Amino acid sequence: MAQKPSIPKGTRDFGPAEMAGRNYIFDTIRSVFRTYGYAPIETPSIENLNTLLGKYGEEGDKLLFRILNSGDAFSKIDYDAYRVEGTENDYNSKALSLKLCEKGLRYDLTVPFARFVVQHQNDLVFPFKRYQIQPVWRADRPQKGRYREFYQCDVDVIGSTSQLNELELVQIVDRVFTLFGVNVCIKINNRKVLTGMAEICGFPEKVVDITVAIDKMDKVGLEAVESEMMEKGLTAEAIEVLRPILALKGSTAQKIEIMRDLMNGKSASGLVSETGLKGLDELEELFGYISAAGILHDVEMDLSLARGLNYYTGAIFEVKAKDFAIGSICGGGRYDNLTGIFGLPDMSGVGISFGADRIYDVLKGLDKFPSEVTSTTKLLFANMGAAEVSYLIPVVKSLREAGISCEIYPGQAKLKKQFDYASRKSIPFLSITGGDEVASGMVNVKNLSTGEQKTFAKDDVEGILTFLQ
Amino acid sequence: MAQKPSIPKGTRDFGPAEMAGRNYIFDTIRSVFRTYGYAPIETPSIENLNTLLGKYGEEGDKLLFRILNSGDAFSKIDYDAYRVEGTENDYNSKALSLKLCEKGLRYDLTVPFARFVVQHQNDLVFPFKRYQIQPVWRADRPQKGRYREFYQCDVDVIGSTSQLNELELVQIVDRVFTLFGVNVCIKINNRKVLTGMAEICGFPEKVVDITVAIDKMDKVGLEAVESEMMEKGLTAEAIEVLRPILALKGSTAQKIEIMRDLMNGKSASGLVSETGLKGLDELEELFGYISAAGILHDVEMDLSLARGLNYYTGAIFEVKAKDFAIGSICGGGRYDNLTGIFGLPDMSGVGISFGADRIYDVLKGLDKFPSEVTSTTKLLFANMGAAEVSYLIPVVKSLREAGISCEIYPGQAKLKKQFDYASRKSIPFLSITGGDEVASGMVNVKNLSTGEQKTFAKDDVEGILTFLQ
Repeated sequence: MAQKPSIPKGTRDFGPAEMAGRNYIFDTIRSVFRTYGYAPIETPSIENLNTLLGKYGEEGDKLLFRILNSGDAFSKIDYDAYRVEGTENDYNSKALSLKLCEKGLRYDLTVPFARFVVQHQNDLVFPFKRYQIQPVWRADRPQKGRYREFYQCDVDVIGSTSQLNELELVQIVDRVFTLFGVNVCIKINNRKVLTGMAEICGFPEKVVDITVAIDKMDKVGLEAVESEMMEKGLTAEAIEVLRPILALKGSTAQKIEIMRDLMNGKSASGLVSETGLKGLDELEELFGYISAAGILHDVEMDLSLARGLNYYTGAIFEVKAKDFAIGSICGGGRYDNLTGIFGLPDMSGVGISFGADRIYDVLKGLDKFPSEVTSTTKLLFANMGAAEVSYLIPVVKSLREAGISCEIYPGQAKLKKQFDYASRKSIPFLSITGGDEVASGMVNVKNLSTGEQKTFAKDDVEGILTFLQ
Repeated sequence: MAQKPSIPKGTRDFGPAEMAGRNYIFDTIRSVFRTYGYAPIETPSIENLNTLLGKYGEEGDKLLFRILNSGDAFSKIDYDAYRVEGTENDYNSKALSLKLCEKGLRYDLTVPFARFVVQHQNDLVFPFKRYQIQPVWRADRPQKGRYREFYQCDVDVIGSTSQLNELELVQIVDRVFTLFGVNVCIKINNRKVLTGMAEICGFPEKVVDITVAIDKMDKVGLEAVESEMMEKGLTAEAIEVLRPILALKGSTAQKIEIMRDLMNGKSASGLVSETGLKGLDELEELFGYISAAGILHDVEMDLSLARGLNYYTGAIFEVKAKDFAIGSICGGGRYDNLTGIFGLPDMSGVGISFGADRIYDVLKGLDKFPSEVTSTTKLLFANMGAAEVSYLIPVVKSLREAGISCEIYPGQAKLKKQFDYASRKSIPFLSITGGDEVASGMVNVKNLSTGEQKTFAKDDVEGILTFLQ
């Protein structure tokens, strides 16, 4: 009995058309990474679980795909020892899975990158600039736009604190979306400024609550943000200190100037935040570079931007498409001690990640895929018989060596069927070279969209190439 | 306490230098596949275990990496029900693993391809020509040159029985290794001829034993092959029939002629094999095409070639490097009913797989990687201070947009340190553009291998590009 074929939920097959679009995205991003001096690395899909566990919070641990140990993993286990006390048939799944599964699938590219840097630190040249385009796996509940296997495209530099790195990431984003023809807005913040805000309002320990609240500014508005902060225990006086920041207007330079005053003891609390001032210096330096760089897209300082708070310590980035509603398509920031957990402290890094799946949806939604991306074969030679095929083989070979994608229809099917093949594959040129052409040493080629047809001498590869342009 | 970072045995990290070599291999192979009209697909790393189980033999089932079901997989299991009868603490691991693991990692690309073709048959255009370059996983005992995660590069056409497909695969191999500059020998056999040999010697049911024996011809010689066949139950008369085949000499055309006589009742047994004759017809047609195609490498009919016998039904291919001993670097063949198990019978396909890891070793061993493959950044701009950096930003931007990989050193480190960075990364050009150049609107660039230095106007991108050639 034949199986009905299927794939696990949350995973996808990519056929030729989707692959063409995805490769266009990856190739474009990769080509830009390369011109900025970033080099590729790859890490194994399978990591030791102790590399992954505890790095993504308790929720993240649950979303790791665990791989069963090899051999008869289940045979010689004393299951009774794992029984939950006082139950008949309930076992400690966490402990059993640690015993039976020592490996797991990569959950993101950042932790494997940190592991890689520490493991190979003696072979690397610092600052180390790497990009990495590989799939990651998460046992999330599958839903629209959320997959259990998806690609991440990460670019990071580690071992340099210069704001020039932040600039380059902004330039990379700018260049990539210029090449894609997609209008984006690049939002920038700095975690140190968020820390400063918590410090000058007198609740330095509530920086997470404060930033989680103001992160919702866009969606819920000022009032709702303020009442959330009240709920989290902030006083009216503290909110009084934050209010002018949340309502900040003007150019980036003006905003930075006002913020510097506030961080410098001129807020309602009179408190000073050295960290906040440092963050403003970084933002000022970065926006100075950005002016010099002639960035084509909108770049905006957004003090309510907080994302991925858990490890960012400096710059925070987020990119959104302006003409297509889909959430953030790029994000990242600076993290000062990512490699510390693997034994290499004080390595500052900054990076950004491109969301390939969402970018695909944006390009498709805005019809921005170049037309040549979707067609694969350029020219089909109809199969008119064994003699014609043998005659054509060297012609086809020369065209292929000149980089043209072409095919001889592999069977001697009816011409109707061969036409159908060309048409369903959107092949734009067709050659029906039969006995007459063979006898006279010619090859004909027809442009299927214009109907124009030309005949060439068998070895006139240049002529055919020109006609195919 | 910091963890000492490590990766699971049998897996690998690839740093920038290895990635450069690997990408060169993949890009070259992919570009050739493309010119032959093959389109890329990708399938999920994770397949349902019932897609994979039973497809690779019992040994293969054991080598599948199984993924633990999500959630508290271990908690509510009645382990006692899985206890091996009469034992205290031994459990049926196979049954438990089927209950607890419904998914597994892809073991090869062929079975997922078959699953893909059947699942998407209504959306595909047949003959369907696809290539697929993705990692596969096997829980093999790790050893030198054998990994638990490795890439396969497969190219297959399905839905056509024409020998033109076989020719194209030979041409693809020929072209790929011409581009690599590696001398190879392409060996070709046909499973039907092997079947014919078993038939005319009177032991059609022993085709596997016979081919396993003669597959060792190269290594152990005629006598050992004959005694192995004796051990497997062949009679002296049967071996008498096979002996002239094993000692066959001459051109391919001569060999085919002799073989046709033998299959046609002119062997010592007088038996006729229709299947064998069909196989010879296919080989003759294929070698006819090969002559017309001007193949540059050695192509040899080898009637002792048997590999992967389990599913091949027609052509069998194997490629070896002539100047580097490493075993087969490419292999494949035709399979007449690969999709049958998923409910789509009578779909004949033929394909070949490139062994990227071995090809890497060959190119490295023979020093065939082009020199430009290993260097990433072409030009480093030393960082002489914030003013110089701001001055350089537009210059660097223009060079990058022209496709040049360049960097500004990201920190204001001592020049010695910046030189070291250029030297350790093998960056061939260096610019030390300081205050004087900024004042005069110039940029200087030095070729670090020749020592030649030139000064350009800031916006003379063309001039710099020419100097970098």
